[in-house]
Amino acid sequence: VIKKFVPILGWLPNYRKADLPGDISAGLTVGVMLIPQGMAYALLAGLPPIYGLYASLVPLLLYALLGTSRQLAVGPVAMVSLMIAAGVNQFAAPGTEEYITLVILLTFMIGVIQFGMGLLRLGFLVNFLSHPVITGFTSAAAIIIGFSQLQHLLGLTLPQTNQIHEILYYALRDIRAVNIPTLLLGLCAVTLIFFLKKWKPTFPSPLLAVATGIGFVWLFDLPAKGVQIVGSIPEGLPSFSLPPVEDTAIQALFPLSLAIALVGFMESIAVAKAMAARHRDNYTLDSNQELIGLGAANLGGAFFQSLPVTGGLSRTIVNEQAGAKTGLAAIISAILIGFTLLFLTPLFYYLPKAVLAAVILVAVAKLIDFKELRFLWCTKREDFAMAALTFLATLFIGVEEGIAIGVVISLAMVIYHSTRPHFAVLGKLPGTNVYRNINRFPEAKEEQDKLIMRFDSMLYFANTEYFKEKLQRLEEKKETSLKLVIIDAVGITSIDASGVHALREIIEDHQKRNITLYLSGVIGPVRDVLHRAGITDRLGKDHFFIDINEALEYYTEPEKSKVNPAYILQTNQ
Amino acid sequence: VIKKFVPILGWLPNYRKADLPGDISAGLTVGVMLIPQGMAYALLAGLPPIYGLYASLVPLLLYALLGTSRQLAVGPVAMVSLMIAAGVNQFAAPGTEEYITLVILLTFMIGVIQFGMGLLRLGFLVNFLSHPVITGFTSAAAIIIGFSQLQHLLGLTLPQTNQIHEILYYALRDIRAVNIPTLLLGLCAVTLIFFLKKWKPTFPSPLLAVATGIGFVWLFDLPAKGVQIVGSIPEGLPSFSLPPVEDTAIQALFPLSLAIALVGFMESIAVAKAMAARHRDNYTLDSNQELIGLGAANLGGAFFQSLPVTGGLSRTIVNEQAGAKTGLAAIISAILIGFTLLFLTPLFYYLPKAVLAAVILVAVAKLIDFKELRFLWCTKREDFAMAALTFLATLFIGVEEGIAIGVVISLAMVIYHSTRPHFAVLGKLPGTNVYRNINRFPEAKEEQDKLIMRFDSMLYFANTEYFKEKLQRLEEKKETSLKLVIIDAVGITSIDASGVHALREIIEDHQKRNITLYLSGVIGPVRDVLHRAGITDRLGKDHFFIDINEALEYYTEPEKSKVNPAYILQTNQ
Repeated sequence: VIKKFVPILGWLPNYRKADLPGDISAGLTVGVMLIPQGMAYALLAGLPPIYGLYASLVPLLLYALLGTSRQLAVGPVAMVSLMIAAGVNQFAAPGTEEYITLVILLTFMIGVIQFGMGLLRLGFLVNFLSHPVITGFTSAAAIIIGFSQLQHLLGLTLPQTNQIHEILYYALRDIRAVNIPTLLLGLCAVTLIFFLKKWKPTFPSPLLAVATGIGFVWLFDLPAKGVQIVGSIPEGLPSFSLPPVEDTAIQALFPLSLAIALVGFMESIAVAKAMAARHRDNYTLDSNQELIGLGAANLGGAFFQSLPVTGGLSRTIVNEQAGAKTGLAAIISAILIGFTLLFLTPLFYYLPKAVLAAVILVAVAKLIDFKELRFLWCTKREDFAMAALTFLATLFIGVEEGIAIGVVISLAMVIYHSTRPHFAVLGKLPGTNVYRNINRFPEAKEEQDKLIMRFDSMLYFANTEYFKEKLQRLEEKKETSLKLVIIDAVGITSIDASGVHALREIIEDHQKRNITLYLSGVIGPVRDVLHRAGITDRLGKDHFFIDINEALEYYTEPEKSKVNPAYILQTNQ
Repeated sequence: VIKKFVPILGWLPNYRKADLPGDISAGLTVGVMLIPQGMAYALLAGLPPIYGLYASLVPLLLYALLGTSRQLAVGPVAMVSLMIAAGVNQFAAPGTEEYITLVILLTFMIGVIQFGMGLLRLGFLVNFLSHPVITGFTSAAAIIIGFSQLQHLLGLTLPQTNQIHEILYYALRDIRAVNIPTLLLGLCAVTLIFFLKKWKPTFPSPLLAVATGIGFVWLFDLPAKGVQIVGSIPEGLPSFSLPPVEDTAIQALFPLSLAIALVGFMESIAVAKAMAARHRDNYTLDSNQELIGLGAANLGGAFFQSLPVTGGLSRTIVNEQAGAKTGLAAIISAILIGFTLLFLTPLFYYLPKAVLAAVILVAVAKLIDFKELRFLWCTKREDFAMAALTFLATLFIGVEEGIAIGVVISLAMVIYHSTRPHFAVLGKLPGTNVYRNINRFPEAKEEQDKLIMRFDSMLYFANTEYFKEKLQRLEEKKETSLKLVIIDAVGITSIDASGVHALREIIEDHQKRNITLYLSGVIGPVRDVLHRAGITDRLGKDHFFIDINEALEYYTEPEKSKVNPAYILQTNQ
């Protein structure tokens, strides 16, 4: 049972030598990606770049210990960094001591939330983020991230804000102050990374851009020409220290930590699931254990100056493609980062911030998902509208607010639709025993004295009135000649007390009007409720049929028919 | 078209003489009931009793003009009065000028909200009040109302609060100060009304109690013995005056007015619908026009010192039983109230408040719905829990809060259940073509190399993961031998973009694993989405079947079979 909670005990003792080359190669590749990306995302989060490396060390080891995915590459990611910047800069100025303290506290809180959610098995909550909401949110986040990097790319000092029109306004106002060497350096880096990636996806193009950038800056003494560089970076591993837990700060950061905990987990679990599906013979993923693994990574990371981490999409794909078979790959990545921290940080002194901005820009550009938007437009306009709404809310109202609005409205729409569900009048398809919607199958035949109706929804308090009303309308069309009503209940997926009351009213009304009412195809869980509510007896046991066919056969010739009307009721009493 | 918005124009010009006796008798009966009930409910609302009569005049006329129900008896009702008292006493002391001003403003606001909701056709919102929530709320409200009358029944001055433990505490503390004549008078009135109602339901027992009470008080000079009486009541009709519209008060009262507008409409529409069903040959009810009618009653009433009104359950039933056929009955009731206001108010000088309390107590006692609670307990434990929760929240947290909590939690439960819906593995019932859940029908036969699965819910973002996971689990049980999977989609009542993505993943996964995947019985609206999303082509048009039978027939012998797999797709392209 301990293997369930500490998955590494499941795979490390049985480690196969054959997996080693893949793990080493993948670990090194991801480690090499992590150096520039980690620094870039720390910069995006409003922190000195070194914190991105700190976040690529301890959290990776903890996830390798407790996570169930064997390919997931944990570390700083763009979306989470954006949310950090957007949220924390309300309480402190980016880059200050106070700001750093708050971010580390945030890491700690996210860890606690994720770990707790995992223990309480609340992983399913992430399912409330629908595809359209994720698409709209991600696309808007990518645009905000892009604009936030404008200052590094142009060499300007722009206000710290997520209002893109403000950023644009100040950028245009100060356009003459743009630092040309910075801009050229940035654009070259963007071009280099972008095309190198197209041409050879596995090549560590960001690292090449970083190295080339450092070389250029050093060679031509660009800092003297106004190019901003990373500057001196402290050497050595992050030291152990208690997270700065403080009441008022916790209260202030709580909504943000909740939002990041969920969004971070959502990003992580999506890619982890895709990987697990490819390796389903090897291991199975456990959503709640994933929360525990990520929670531990953040919780533990907070003791070693980490910013919030999660499983990243692009690095995970690279990890898998480079051959990662177990968590050992992540451990090797961490070792590489540790080595870098111990010995290589002086090399990054001349690293221009414009190149880090370029790394971010190329990474987030692909988050704007035009293909999915087009798919939504073609498939379901309403889902497109939901994506557009989330997109606009995220862009113009706020990052956390955008995703909250998306989730709430998409749930409200689900409820709204369930109040007026689809229903159909059925007729018999010629030459078959099949009954289908007469509006879609013109050849389906309806009889004047019979109404066969299918209701496609659970019957619950918010739609019982609609159900009663529609049934009445359909009956009014036939009024005088109507003798038999069959409600085909295959689509009534569940029923509550209000639904039972509605059904009782309908039954009493039909009995009063001398119209025979049959129910056909009622599913098990609904039969149970009807039985306990006494509806079975009130309607009569010989009014329940396994399908429409049997109902009609019995209605026409009850004596000759071999149909046993109550058959469907037999087994669940 | 004007008849639609002013329904009286539809019936008054065609008034049948035959309806007149019934309307007159019903109008007088209800008017006689309204005198004591109106005064009692005004007292309950924290107002001088005369306001109950004001509320029984202008609003009745306006509703008769604009409402669609012909039996609904509009006026003050207990539940609304309770909500007024519970809400407004946070802002002013009951009985004061300020309090009265606030209540009249509240009437105006409720009118605006209901009228606006009617114009915007938002009547369906009331459906979100489920049976269990209404039961729990009503029962708790009845108990709170009962305790609020304790002071009048005991002749004590108790604190104005809805905390029943506080009321009990003070009542017990001051038990020696109880005014015995008041208590006896009250208890006699309760007994009289209660048993007279049992014996002869249509007899105006409250009026008899009021008359007897007045007689007793006058005869034995009970005010000298400490019995509280209504005292002098201003004569004459309510005068026209503008409602005291004021910004800060509107803001303060807004949540309350919204809650009362909804609860009032809910109570009214429920009884109006029951009446309309009994008189369906005569007229049809329009929910949104009902909102307009009630809204006008409150809106106009506010110009004539009315407290908020709605359609009341008991008076409406009496109205119908006494023979009301049109809105003329309500007009006659209003005329009787007008006559009372003009000439009879001095008669009520000696009316003891204890008798009004008795009228309230008997009226609310039947609101505690043990039968429904028992029904919920037997039928669906969860619905019982919802009623209990609303009951406790209303009793111990607050009246508005109670109903809000009930609505929010019942919607949350609907969402929660939809994330883990029912599903079933199907097998063939011997000797039929019917497929049923193998767990409920042990005789249903399953084949080892085939999996037939039915999913009983819309497939949407919150349950796609659950669907994928369950399908995978079911397949794993058969793993090696599995050749065919049929998803019976009759229960998939709708699908969204996330559902489409899930289905695409499932299709790709099965194609990769060389397992045939068929869909059977997909309903029209879902077919439309699948078609637009390109799923139809991706799965293959010969993988859609009208039912499980045809799918299996085609699978076994595609050449010999006469089944046309794409038949179900034909008509909607």
